Amino acid sequence: MRTLRVELGERSYPIYIGSGIMDSIGELSRKHGISVKSPQLIVTDDKVAPYYLAQVEQALTAEGYSVVTHTVPSGESSKSLQVYEEVMTTAIRGKLDRSSAVFALGGGVVGDLAGFVAATYMRGVTFVQIPTTILAHDSSVGGKVAVNHPLAKNMIGAFHQPAMVLYDVDTLKSLPPREVSSGLAEMVKHGLILDRDFAYWCRDHAEELLGLVPETLIYGLERGCAIKADVVSKDEREGGLRAILNLGHTIGHAIEAVGGYGRFLHGEAIAIGMAGSAMLAGMLGRDQSLYAETVGMLQALNLPVTLPADIMVEDIMDAMQHDKKFAEGRMVFIVPEAIGSVSIVKDVPVDAVRTVVEQLKGEVNT
Amino acid sequence: MRTLRVELGERSYPIYIGSGIMDSIGELSRKHGISVKSPQLIVTDDKVAPYYLAQVEQALTAEGYSVVTHTVPSGESSKSLQVYEEVMTTAIRGKLDRSSAVFALGGGVVGDLAGFVAATYMRGVTFVQIPTTILAHDSSVGGKVAVNHPLAKNMIGAFHQPAMVLYDVDTLKSLPPREVSSGLAEMVKHGLILDRDFAYWCRDHAEELLGLVPETLIYGLERGCAIKADVVSKDEREGGLRAILNLGHTIGHAIEAVGGYGRFLHGEAIAIGMAGSAMLAGMLGRDQSLYAETVGMLQALNLPVTLPADIMVEDIMDAMQHDKKFAEGRMVFIVPEAIGSVSIVKDVPVDAVRTVVEQLKGEVNT
Repeated sequence: MRTLRVELGERSYPIYIGSGIMDSIGELSRKHGISVKSPQLIVTDDKVAPYYLAQVEQALTAEGYSVVTHTVPSGESSKSLQVYEEVMTTAIRGKLDRSSAVFALGGGVVGDLAGFVAATYMRGVTFVQIPTTILAHDSSVGGKVAVNHPLAKNMIGAFHQPAMVLYDVDTLKSLPPREVSSGLAEMVKHGLILDRDFAYWCRDHAEELLGLVPETLIYGLERGCAIKADVVSKDEREGGLRAILNLGHTIGHAIEAVGGYGRFLHGEAIAIGMAGSAMLAGMLGRDQSLYAETVGMLQALNLPVTLPADIMVEDIMDAMQHDKKFAEGRMVFIVPEAIGSVSIVKDVPVDAVRTVVEQLKGEVNT
Repeated sequence: MRTLRVELGERSYPIYIGSGIMDSIGELSRKHGISVKSPQLIVTDDKVAPYYLAQVEQALTAEGYSVVTHTVPSGESSKSLQVYEEVMTTAIRGKLDRSSAVFALGGGVVGDLAGFVAATYMRGVTFVQIPTTILAHDSSVGGKVAVNHPLAKNMIGAFHQPAMVLYDVDTLKSLPPREVSSGLAEMVKHGLILDRDFAYWCRDHAEELLGLVPETLIYGLERGCAIKADVVSKDEREGGLRAILNLGHTIGHAIEAVGGYGRFLHGEAIAIGMAGSAMLAGMLGRDQSLYAETVGMLQALNLPVTLPADIMVEDIMDAMQHDKKFAEGRMVFIVPEAIGSVSIVKDVPVDAVRTVVEQLKGEVNT
């Protein structure tokens, strides 16, 4: 079992990564001072529950914990205020108190939802994350928790750091191949923004990563988490630097929205977005080879780098309009400077972005 | 205008107290760095709005701010997740961003609701409080914000400190006499727990306080806020010391619940609770004169110190049962040691509390 520490002063916490470590959750909870006198709540979804809920519950009860559970439907629709209130009801009925903890067993949706419950139940209780997707290696570092408002995603939330994260790579075995690639998009993104060697490592180990070879995955997740942790340590509340984590996300979020949040997985959308950012970098005078290098890395991980023909350029542009500067004809963009290095450019012409989106619909020409 | 500073490290903030200072809200907002480029949200209720909403709105727009407003029905029922979501909708439609602020114009309900919106809109934005009740002098210090769950009060919330509090005592003129007394209950409570001289000052200036004489009120509010601020500075997240602020609240909350949250005002319920605590102190061997002294102070402020005959002792006892130690026959209680001094006693026999509640139903015998 590897341990990575996220340094955030008094809110620092460890990420335990390993194979077959799920059963240690009870022991680790004891070690982290979670009281056996208080009831604990596990939040999971109906896709994850059949595989791991009983195991986690048993690992906790074996250490003397009493546990209540709440299973939500899998998918983004569970990140609603209504489901949030239902989880709160379970917490109150289960008599959770201020010394209780909320355990999130699942992917990003469960982590965000359970984390917001933990952030706000009795003004905040302990939060523990047990991610079961590769994508969640990203969301389990940073403390961002949220639910959606009908008018906008992630609009209601908080910063609430977990007390610990337990990452058992064995849980990834049941992921469909598209979900695997989607998760690897965030992993290689961490290389692209800050660690050239790691970006190339992801490309060179693509086959093992896609094949979920435990040692390779453990290294990749650890390094991905470490890079993100380093950024978050320097900017916990997203004052500036943290924006670099959004490489590929401006176009990516627009693609997700235009696809109705179902057609494209998050990692697929940001892969196309990262290809677009590299293309934009070339247009803004950066190294012309960046685009080909980036696209090569993404394709090695079975990720898309172009927009399907039926996606309308203007729909993508409209979906980006909520950006404040958009109306003035300028946008803030995370622009690659080299593989492993990006900058925050505040006055990218909207027209340049439009050209990029148009070209994303064409053939890949590297 | 008096300025009191609540010391909380990087979350420190000022409370401005004075007469006729409402119009300075725009200027003070500028001074506190609230951006004129971002829309601002004022949350108020339908009782306060007709008196002050236009004035606050105008004071902000005069300084160049654009403002959206949201008026909720007055009363505890507005502290619901449903109303919370409606306020969020107004914030999103009004295009509030991370540099926006939420202004709470009203009493405790508006402060709690708007504060929880500020704590969780886009993971937290600036919060400004403009209290319009005496009771709110208590809730505007401490950073506790919350809404109610159908199963329990204040169960969903956060700690979110305001950037500033503007307290214009002129707004108190429209308060009904019962509300005035209710607010003064928290004021004298601050004397009872930590400041003997202030407790006697409240009693000796009862007539001016009840008559809302500005200079007297300003001093009382300032001293009450200062005492609470001192406690909160030492224990921001309610780890221990802060519990002394709950003098009279264990019995008081039970009285509010049994009365269906409408029959007794908060200050009335805790006044009866404080009388009970002083009585309990005598039973536990403390100075027998505490009860008479306490009751005298409360009565000077036109506050009740006994339970009406139709309130059932067992209903009050049942309402206190959520306390974890209750089942073991013991309770945690804030017990007066002298006027201006209390201690946290962790093993008060439940039977002694029952005796106190029984005697609260009798005649006052000092």
